[in-house]
Amino acid sequence: MSDDPQSDPRQAFQELCRWSVETARWVSIGDVLGWDERTMMPAADGEHRAEQLTLLSGLIHRRWTDRRLGELLDHLETTALADDPHSDAGTAIRRLRRSRDRAVKKPPELVEELARTSVLGQQVWQQARRDNDFASFQPLLEKTVRLKREEAEAIGYDDQPYDALLDEYEPDARTAEITAVLADLRDRLVPLVSAIAESDRRPASEILRRRYPVDAQERFGRMVAAAIGFDFDRGRLDVTAHPFCSGMGPNDCRITTRYNERQPGSALFGIMHESGHGMYDQGLPTEFWGLPTGESISLGIHESQSRLWENAVGRSHAFWRHFFPQAQAAFPEALAGVAIDDFHFAINEVRPSLIRVEADEVTYNLHVMVRFELELALLNGDLPVAELPGAWNAKYREYLGIEPPDDADGVLQDVHWSSGAIGYFPTYSLGNLYAAHWMQAAKTDLGDLDEQFARGEFAPLLSWLRENVHRHGQRYSATELLAKVSGERLSSEPLITQLRHKFGPLYGF
Amino acid sequence: MSDDPQSDPRQAFQELCRWSVETARWVSIGDVLGWDERTMMPAADGEHRAEQLTLLSGLIHRRWTDRRLGELLDHLETTALADDPHSDAGTAIRRLRRSRDRAVKKPPELVEELARTSVLGQQVWQQARRDNDFASFQPLLEKTVRLKREEAEAIGYDDQPYDALLDEYEPDARTAEITAVLADLRDRLVPLVSAIAESDRRPASEILRRRYPVDAQERFGRMVAAAIGFDFDRGRLDVTAHPFCSGMGPNDCRITTRYNERQPGSALFGIMHESGHGMYDQGLPTEFWGLPTGESISLGIHESQSRLWENAVGRSHAFWRHFFPQAQAAFPEALAGVAIDDFHFAINEVRPSLIRVEADEVTYNLHVMVRFELELALLNGDLPVAELPGAWNAKYREYLGIEPPDDADGVLQDVHWSSGAIGYFPTYSLGNLYAAHWMQAAKTDLGDLDEQFARGEFAPLLSWLRENVHRHGQRYSATELLAKVSGERLSSEPLITQLRHKFGPLYGF
Repeated sequence: MSDDPQSDPRQAFQELCRWSVETARWVSIGDVLGWDERTMMPAADGEHRAEQLTLLSGLIHRRWTDRRLGELLDHLETTALADDPHSDAGTAIRRLRRSRDRAVKKPPELVEELARTSVLGQQVWQQARRDNDFASFQPLLEKTVRLKREEAEAIGYDDQPYDALLDEYEPDARTAEITAVLADLRDRLVPLVSAIAESDRRPASEILRRRYPVDAQERFGRMVAAAIGFDFDRGRLDVTAHPFCSGMGPNDCRITTRYNERQPGSALFGIMHESGHGMYDQGLPTEFWGLPTGESISLGIHESQSRLWENAVGRSHAFWRHFFPQAQAAFPEALAGVAIDDFHFAINEVRPSLIRVEADEVTYNLHVMVRFELELALLNGDLPVAELPGAWNAKYREYLGIEPPDDADGVLQDVHWSSGAIGYFPTYSLGNLYAAHWMQAAKTDLGDLDEQFARGEFAPLLSWLRENVHRHGQRYSATELLAKVSGERLSSEPLITQLRHKFGPLYGF
Repeated sequence: MSDDPQSDPRQAFQELCRWSVETARWVSIGDVLGWDERTMMPAADGEHRAEQLTLLSGLIHRRWTDRRLGELLDHLETTALADDPHSDAGTAIRRLRRSRDRAVKKPPELVEELARTSVLGQQVWQQARRDNDFASFQPLLEKTVRLKREEAEAIGYDDQPYDALLDEYEPDARTAEITAVLADLRDRLVPLVSAIAESDRRPASEILRRRYPVDAQERFGRMVAAAIGFDFDRGRLDVTAHPFCSGMGPNDCRITTRYNERQPGSALFGIMHESGHGMYDQGLPTEFWGLPTGESISLGIHESQSRLWENAVGRSHAFWRHFFPQAQAAFPEALAGVAIDDFHFAINEVRPSLIRVEADEVTYNLHVMVRFELELALLNGDLPVAELPGAWNAKYREYLGIEPPDDADGVLQDVHWSSGAIGYFPTYSLGNLYAAHWMQAAKTDLGDLDEQFARGEFAPLLSWLRENVHRHGQRYSATELLAKVSGERLSSEPLITQLRHKFGPLYGF
């Protein structure tokens, strides 16, 4: 790096931007490696891929801890460029400072130990899940919890250790606030689930267990993704075991799905979900690619986009008023003679179940709640790892009224904890809450969205999201953005209202 | 890097090996980016991919010119580890020294200027080819030739500038030797082509213009690739515009092809060609991955593997004695009732044509000869770029008896010169010559290969290639390896003998 930045703040800021874009390019190289690993790579080369990714993450970590970056930020923070926290420069300085501080605060030995434990943890977890053997996973999870506690201490927090971890996935969120809003959500969901359970109405869910040929599912899924606004000129759709979306470059965003001939919803709503993520990435301003003003705010906001398109759009009656005839043409064997209302009820069946990723729109958040409460207790030391399976089962009984027959379909079902991702789960529910806020605000601005959906018009909603969410990048925190768009604070009210509005008529309450 | 290497040669050698493997890992990251660019990436993200590749090549160049690598090599060359040039250590020290010297000798400004001119050159060339407008490409080609002359001077040579460029693709080869052997080949091919042209026998080439459904082509191609020995557990087959093979990791080698419903040979022989490259990569010792003992010798030797499987195996009558019934079952519409001899003659039609990549086995080397003679004259200053199109057409008239109607299908058909790849073309013909040597030696060792092919047995030939070529990595130069395997020097004799033996009966001379 070149001249003394003290001389000219604009020059220092340009250097910071170059640093940021170049770092993002390195990160995006890792994105290509990661996407390829999960969609294309022969499994036999996995060890080599891990070595490549290790090299790359070492380089990226060295960039974040480079002394020069600290100098630039120290200097820029004293200049007028940092005055407006929402300006291009203010946003960049503020968000890069956050990430820099997190990187510098973690001792290198801890970073390394966490990385190693994460790789090992995932391997041991996979085996433990196959063997339905929590005990074999317990020592590694104990180590992970201990290391994450150390990480939280190293990073620091005002209120409680969980804050420091949550902050990585949901910047500026606080555990106490989230606990309050999610507890409120839980308390209002549980009676909703009970009301549904007590209803004597049941959908003809057998409709969704008929044969839906995979090639027709793929064609239909692509058609829907393009219709709602995913840009295939700047993206792709591929097959993988555990679907994800990866924004790999300013004009390269890739979504993935998996197909099951007897489970058409898995691919279709999966594609709409990942398209939601993808349209957010595609809606970020490309002129700011690699800078905080060109990046997504948080996992919660990202999830709000995917859940909005998957549920509020894809599972709405209006959506199917447009698409059901096409679905009947695409899947004549399964759908000929089926009434749209029966189909709509089937794709909205609410049934307490064991597996989070297969849960319906209503019970989903209770699955998240179980995990959030447990990981908080683990981190705070209120729950020893050895007692985790029992606590898991008790919470499933309490919130969902069912109990896992074994740990494989219980406490061992998710990869997150094995990889050290503690603080991640609540962002799934935050996504649902934000999505409901966006839908409420969009309806205020755009009028009758249902009429638009029924005509196959999704551009107004997408434009609204582009204008109100996507284009800002990281200019505002999630909380600030919500206030700006709706004048509200995060609440379970819009989601509960929307769920009651939708499921009341279906289940008759 | 750590301790003083003077203390312990083994320790210094281990450090050198770590350096080599880590450098190879960075290179292999670029291979993933390159493969993805050509098979998967949305075209819209091309600029970003170029930036990623530029970052990576900068990092790799800095590694090659790092002072510490020089110190290690300087020291190791004075130790007993370097005594045997074919030992593990001797091979590594010798080959890394070669590459290091090439990297250090090129001034950084020249490296950068060449990189920029290469990217720009390819863009301008594409447009010029589309517009059939050599004049618009001429200034960039003039610049490229000038820069490549500078590069040759910077690298240095004993005899002539072309040596310095050739050496990048075909280490230790010398222009004078290659000129002699290729001129000899040309002089013996021209009468062969004439004899064929004068023959009144013609294959029923219409057989190959029938309809071969693309999905059946893909299934058949995969089946053949697996049957000859390409390991799909350690590789893939995908579609691309300009087929290639990329060895991306110790257990990840990817081949590509393109399909044309009315041109079945393009995909099938393309797949066999790339499988030949792929099986070489898959046959390199994985325990030496990232070290010279685990890498391929030269482009000529690499091409010898692809051309051997494509032509000596894939276009042999014996091969089709095994596969023709399966081909008839796979393509009943096109091949029902066709006699194997007619099919075999059709896939071996010799006909002077304009485009190298579509040329038959006999005339192919004349296409290469034209390019080799012209690029040599360009580099030596004997031919001004402005006169290149005329010289090109004159040579096509002389060697092939036909003349391109325009430059798009003439001098502008290949990408190589536009990207600065001068010294590359002869390796295609070297590949053909080496392949003929290998076939001669393999027949001596293995007996009647035709009988094996006709029984669908390709493992003996592949094992022979593994044992005699693949497993050595870069332990021997191409010339040394040929001497070791056959006791011979490179000559056109085996190829001409094999061509006469095959095409004499077909065309009746």
